[in-house]
Amino acid sequence: MDGSTRLIESGEDVLLYMNERKSWIVKVEPEKKFHSHKGIVDLGELVGKPYGYEVKTTLGATLKAMPADYLDHLERIARRTQVIYPKDMAYIALMGNVRSGSIVLECGTGSGALTSYLAGLVRPNGKVITYEIREEFQANARKNLERLGLMDSIEMKLKDITGGIDEKSLDAVVLDMATPWLVIGTVYDALRTGGRVVSFSPTINQIEKTVDEMQKTGFVSIKTVELIMRTYKVKVNETRPDMIMVGHTGYIVSARKC
Amino acid sequence: MDGSTRLIESGEDVLLYMNERKSWIVKVEPEKKFHSHKGIVDLGELVGKPYGYEVKTTLGATLKAMPADYLDHLERIARRTQVIYPKDMAYIALMGNVRSGSIVLECGTGSGALTSYLAGLVRPNGKVITYEIREEFQANARKNLERLGLMDSIEMKLKDITGGIDEKSLDAVVLDMATPWLVIGTVYDALRTGGRVVSFSPTINQIEKTVDEMQKTGFVSIKTVELIMRTYKVKVNETRPDMIMVGHTGYIVSARKC
Amino acid sequence: MDGSTRLIESGEDVLLYMNERKSWIVKVEPEKKFHSHKGIVDLGELVGKPYGYEVKTTLGATLKAMPADYLDHLERIARRTQVIYPKDMAYIALMGNVRSGSIVLECGTGSGALTSYLAGLVRPNGKVITYEIREEFQANARKNLERLGLMDSIEMKLKDITGGIDEKSLDAVVLDMATPWLVIGTVYDALRTGGRVVSFSPTINQIEKTVDEMQKTGFVSIKTVELIMRTYKVKVNETRPDMIMVGHTGYIVSARKC
Amino acid sequence: MDGSTRLIESGEDVLLYMNERKSWIVKVEPEKKFHSHKGIVDLGELVGKPYGYEVKTTLGATLKAMPADYLDHLERIARRTQVIYPKDMAYIALMGNVRSGSIVLECGTGSGALTSYLAGLVRPNGKVITYEIREEFQANARKNLERLGLMDSIEMKLKDITGGIDEKSLDAVVLDMATPWLVIGTVYDALRTGGRVVSFSPTINQIEKTVDEMQKTGFVSIKTVELIMRTYKVKVNETRPDMIMVGHTGYIVSARKC
Repeated sequence: MDGSTRLIESGEDVLLYMNERKSWIVKVEPEKKFHSHKGIVDLGELVGKPYGYEVKTTLGATLKAMPADYLDHLERIARRTQVIYPKDMAYIALMGNVRSGSIVLECGTGSGALTSYLAGLVRPNGKVITYEIREEFQANARKNLERLGLMDSIEMKLKDITGGIDEKSLDAVVLDMATPWLVIGTVYDALRTGGRVVSFSPTINQIEKTVDEMQKTGFVSIKTVELIMRTYKVKVNETRPDMIMVGHTGYIVSARKC
Repeated sequence: MDGSTRLIESGEDVLLYMNERKSWIVKVEPEKKFHSHKGIVDLGELVGKPYGYEVKTTLGATLKAMPADYLDHLERIARRTQVIYPKDMAYIALMGNVRSGSIVLECGTGSGALTSYLAGLVRPNGKVITYEIREEFQANARKNLERLGLMDSIEMKLKDITGGIDEKSLDAVVLDMATPWLVIGTVYDALRTGGRVVSFSPTINQIEKTVDEMQKTGFVSIKTVELIMRTYKVKVNETRPDMIMVGHTGYIVSARKC
Repeated sequence: MDGSTRLIESGEDVLLYMNERKSWIVKVEPEKKFHSHKGIVDLGELVGKPYGYEVKTTLGATLKAMPADYLDHLERIARRTQVIYPKDMAYIALMGNVRSGSIVLECGTGSGALTSYLAGLVRPNGKVITYEIREEFQANARKNLERLGLMDSIEMKLKDITGGIDEKSLDAVVLDMATPWLVIGTVYDALRTGGRVVSFSPTINQIEKTVDEMQKTGFVSIKTVELIMRTYKVKVNETRPDMIMVGHTGYIVSARKC
Repeated sequence: MDGSTRLIESGEDVLLYMNERKSWIVKVEPEKKFHSHKGIVDLGELVGKPYGYEVKTTLGATLKAMPADYLDHLERIARRTQVIYPKDMAYIALMGNVRSGSIVLECGTGSGALTSYLAGLVRPNGKVITYEIREEFQANARKNLERLGLMDSIEMKLKDITGGIDEKSLDAVVLDMATPWLVIGTVYDALRTGGRVVSFSPTINQIEKTVDEMQKTGFVSIKTVELIMRTYKVKVNETRPDMIMVGHTGYIVSARKC
């Protein structure tokens, strides 16, 4: 039996796909009902059915059961809280050389979206240590990360990075905080030789201070970039960029300890 | 002993860092010499020294020995052949939901740069199968991938994808080819339910045909984006974007099998 | 008396400026009242007062009387109908070499916004001839252009350009129409040697057909550009591009008759 | 006789067009020869010929005689000195509401390129006063402006704007200088009510200081934008943006005296 016909098991997260604009992630369990404005679905009916199975709601809508994957979860988190955009997450991870086995420090945890992305990359032998100072953010992030099944690769700390970094010889440090320039020296000491730091900031002034501090600290290969994502409406003979777009998210500064 | 003072072992790839503009990756071995325009380095001298060690060339230049990491290798490959830009690689992998354990088909192999990035993500239990029709490209890519030590996670095939896809129930298919629209139906059949396809193309007309074919085939969540990377010259009181930039690399189309 | 203290005359268009978000253009006349949600203004009170004068509404709001200039009128027109963005208008005029004395054909008139900009440039001895096929658009545009006092430099025609161009030896032709490629040959014949054509289109396919037709017709210096305007939130220590922006308006193709 | 067959007169600037990459502006006079690497042209032969006439060089190349227009001259000036890009010139003029009859102060003159553009707009009854502190720049600009026949609308001053502005009740002030923030108060006093100021700067820090000063001075409608021009390679089935582009020229700040 191939993956196309993998069967839905009890306890799995399933994506109920209605159309391009509407879909839901549900945990499938016997006896459980899912309520939407399009009617009720008996989730127990899905157990044992193959993925791709179509279920009808009590109001007659057809929903398709798909495996809920990481991007589905990421989208769900992004709908609820402000997160670093995926385009930036992917580039941050790349410039931090975050890979299977890497030991990475992240500050701060926020919603846990970037944490989840990094954790997905370092598995199974690496680890993401993530600092956060606001207890309610940490609690919310923990819920998101537990649902994603990534806690094996994550260590969450309620801790202020300006008070120092416990870890040593880190492969990478990822900063998503308001005042990254205050901790550049601390980060340098915590990195191994050749280790990489990546910092994300929305304003010019933040990157100016951060880069200045990196230069003074002795980091090399300091690079500052911005990724502008243009979305397109593609249709034969009518293709054009979308009229309204996200014009700015932030700047990404990366550097390396020599 | 922490990672900062890890010792250089014989057979390892080491980055000899001179300055921001010049560095080299060398395989360290006893008796081996490295020749540059800045003089000769006795690589044997490095064996057993800690990373961060500074070696002098016969002409008096100082080089610092750093662990050569994946980004160093990627940069080296990019200097020799045209590769998909890192910003695009990272986003392609993200939109394909390529993660540890994923089974991914790539077409074509090209220089192996994207292959290496995907392979790094799927380790240790996933796999990247990569098709290429030009034997000399495959041979060159194989050399790059072997040096990176990633062949355990890669299967290289000398094969034309328009003749069909052998694999079934793939998690993702990544297309970097001139005529992606010709294989969209084939790709659909090879993906598992919920699987993702990502295609990279430099011209508008390619994405128009590709998206049109995806719509006819039944793919959902079809999205077309372009990542424009702006680099910055950051200096206190003189910060501005670089005057000359890479204005275009290509468009990224992603979609999902429902 | 210098211009700072020029007196408001009856019949003039005055800008009543309340704040950054709210202002109105009113024609000042004795006995006339202006009604807004912030109260009523006796416009007669303004006659004979110097510009810069502050008037109170019946609800106590303070409005400053400023000379209503062309940009104020343009903004007013843009709020009511879709117009070519000012950034594009300015570049279109430049690439058409539209200057004092130029004889320019525009097609189509639309809201008259671009017409008004071109007319402002060709004064006092040049002329803008503008074709429009929809009578209600022409009527609305005429109202806008009359209020701007530019009709001396404008000739409006209710005419389909695909049926031919009456004028000969034009200095420039500006096209803002759905199918510019259909009239490229006609435009060529109507231009003088060295004359210039500029065409504005929102989609890639339009410019592809237009450029192709220009090449076949013998135009030279064919250039296609897109102006992306990024707006900034500037504030000491918090400067950054605006988060949401107009990502696309259209492409500008320019060429010259040799 | 229409403009297509206007005859070339002695003393006129003529564009000798060879191909897309090569053309020259020459002043046509009897007895005069033009020397290029493609051979010699007897310019006297052109006098009395219609525009569009083709002349052969002594080496057999064919050159077409076209009227040299403003854009041709602008391109020639831009090849020799660094000038504000046309896209920025056009938008600066628009945001300054520079129109026929406007009295405009420009600082500094530089190569005279922006001066020439503004002068072309204010004709025949307006005036551009332009300050420059470097005598050799002024001399070079004067040569450019005289050749363009625009000196009737221009007043050149060898003067440092930080020492004050002589003029009063200006319609607009255009600043292209390293430290615009130093003169914002001075500019305010020199503008009429409703007058506009536009400043062009390459760095973020310049606009930050300029905007801050404008706010303190009482300017309204302060706007900061950046125009990013993307050029396209348009070809049926191969259309895409150019790979290398000018990524940054500068920021445009505009404001109004209330």
